Amino acid sequence: MKLGIYGYGNLGRGAEAAVRQNGDAELVGIFTRRSPDQVKSEPGTPVFRAEDVFSYEKEIDVLLLCGGSATDLPVLSPLLAERFNLVDSFDTHAKIPEHFDKVDAAARRGGKTALISGGWDPGLFSLARLYAGAVLPRGDDFTFWGRGVSQGHSDAIRRIPGVLDARQYTVPVPEAVRAAENGESPSLSPRQTHRRECFVAVKEGADREAIREAIVTMPHYFAGYDTSVTFVSAEKLKEKHAGLPHGGRVIRRGRTGPREENRSLFEFSLKLDSNPEFTGLVLVALARAVDRMHRRGSYGCHTVFDVAPADLSPLSARELRRRFL
Amino acid sequence: MKLGIYGYGNLGRGAEAAVRQNGDAELVGIFTRRSPDQVKSEPGTPVFRAEDVFSYEKEIDVLLLCGGSATDLPVLSPLLAERFNLVDSFDTHAKIPEHFDKVDAAARRGGKTALISGGWDPGLFSLARLYAGAVLPRGDDFTFWGRGVSQGHSDAIRRIPGVLDARQYTVPVPEAVRAAENGESPSLSPRQTHRRECFVAVKEGADREAIREAIVTMPHYFAGYDTSVTFVSAEKLKEKHAGLPHGGRVIRRGRTGPREENRSLFEFSLKLDSNPEFTGLVLVALARAVDRMHRRGSYGCHTVFDVAPADLSPLSARELRRRFL
Repeated sequence: MKLGIYGYGNLGRGAEAAVRQNGDAELVGIFTRRSPDQVKSEPGTPVFRAEDVFSYEKEIDVLLLCGGSATDLPVLSPLLAERFNLVDSFDTHAKIPEHFDKVDAAARRGGKTALISGGWDPGLFSLARLYAGAVLPRGDDFTFWGRGVSQGHSDAIRRIPGVLDARQYTVPVPEAVRAAENGESPSLSPRQTHRRECFVAVKEGADREAIREAIVTMPHYFAGYDTSVTFVSAEKLKEKHAGLPHGGRVIRRGRTGPREENRSLFEFSLKLDSNPEFTGLVLVALARAVDRMHRRGSYGCHTVFDVAPADLSPLSARELRRRFL
Repeated sequence: MKLGIYGYGNLGRGAEAAVRQNGDAELVGIFTRRSPDQVKSEPGTPVFRAEDVFSYEKEIDVLLLCGGSATDLPVLSPLLAERFNLVDSFDTHAKIPEHFDKVDAAARRGGKTALISGGWDPGLFSLARLYAGAVLPRGDDFTFWGRGVSQGHSDAIRRIPGVLDARQYTVPVPEAVRAAENGESPSLSPRQTHRRECFVAVKEGADREAIREAIVTMPHYFAGYDTSVTFVSAEKLKEKHAGLPHGGRVIRRGRTGPREENRSLFEFSLKLDSNPEFTGLVLVALARAVDRMHRRGSYGCHTVFDVAPADLSPLSARELRRRFL
């Protein structure tokens, strides 16, 4: 399958590496809003201007949209879904129904196949929640994130006056994970489940106490959580916090038996050195499914819930049964 | 959906409880080879003779086959697949291709839909291996089982002269699980990954040393493993080892990035108080998918790899996206 990557930030770079790990995938090129000659891609990867993407319509089987969910994808996915099969990683939960409907309408108009909200959450974690709920109808769900870098929270800190740069780690509280697994606690507050660790570089002469206060009281992002703020130099931030690790776990604790006297624990976890590289790999596997669904005439918008697992693998059905069943 | 249960051992009882936990499922009845008036089912569950099952052809949407893989399912599944949509839990790995082909031919002749090898391994663990391999093309897989009761190993001990009853627990070696997660060991021998704990009740005057020796040297089952043998009274065996707990984990350790310098850890685990009750729940969720696939005209034999996740849930696609994505 021939893939295009639209958008070349962290996720776009992850997707580029991901395509090269998949023997049945070929990278037509990267489409960027920057000037192509200023973009440093991996050797051998063609780079094109974003506005030229429609000239490559016939050469691309599936387009991987690697833009952000805040402003890029709500516009780009509906715009491109009429002319390209595509996969995006739209993750603004409350707006998924609206996004789905727009992309679905565009893809149907063009006879194309789209899949939105791919990645690991939404994505693999969503699948774990669905499977767990289907096989354990009576029970409780928990999702923990981290230890990992949250881009949204890091950006929120960067917008505070006096801040040069920042990195925020979301950290699950071990006691909460154990309580979820052991069934000790029916429901857990945000403060009980996650801590927030902030590493912040500030301008010379900045008021550190005021910045700390602005962080820990910030509504939606930090208020209601136990938040630690550590001031470091800009050099140290670059040196020690350059990576984008992430991960987390989905837990469902269910009851079984005629009197529901027994327990089942269903748990799925990821631990990722690089969030964008792993997310890129998930997008490529989903692109394989989109390509096959399109060839079978399954047009319109889909999610991971609609993808038969076999369609994610390059192996034949017979080989899958032999090796993985 | 209207379900029938064919076979009423541990798994059949688990399936009976499972049907009652699913609001959209109704139990037509249990079909048993024993005399129906000697079977103690849950109050309200009709019990029929196995040979009468064909009289209920029109009333049953999907039949759950709850027989054993050694002798029952190789005969029953191909026999019944022509007249019923069905789900089985066939788990003799080496014979899955042959079983699949036979069931597929029968189901196609009858215009029916079958799914074989449902449950958790094969089943949910197979799915974890497929998803993990699809999103992490470069890496290593590990499956650990237990701590849990292996019926096959317990039966093997019971066949030794002088043994009254026995229970064998398969126990994963914690160091091996950690090595798999941390990437310290590229491959692990059976002895390194699992221990075997046996609890054995013997006849009066039996030669315990000879029985211990017969167990630990038994080819295929115990030779090559670290096996502990504890002799207990028949009463204590019934009292302390009556349950059928099981579980395990699937781990894939993958490499990501342009130079594969980063790592991703994918892990799925189950911890079950009752193996047959949980397996019964998985069979009911799969029956839901089989019922829908049949209504859509998708005939023949399938496995978990062919089931779109959404088909396992009673919720609508829109509701699934809202609640689980």
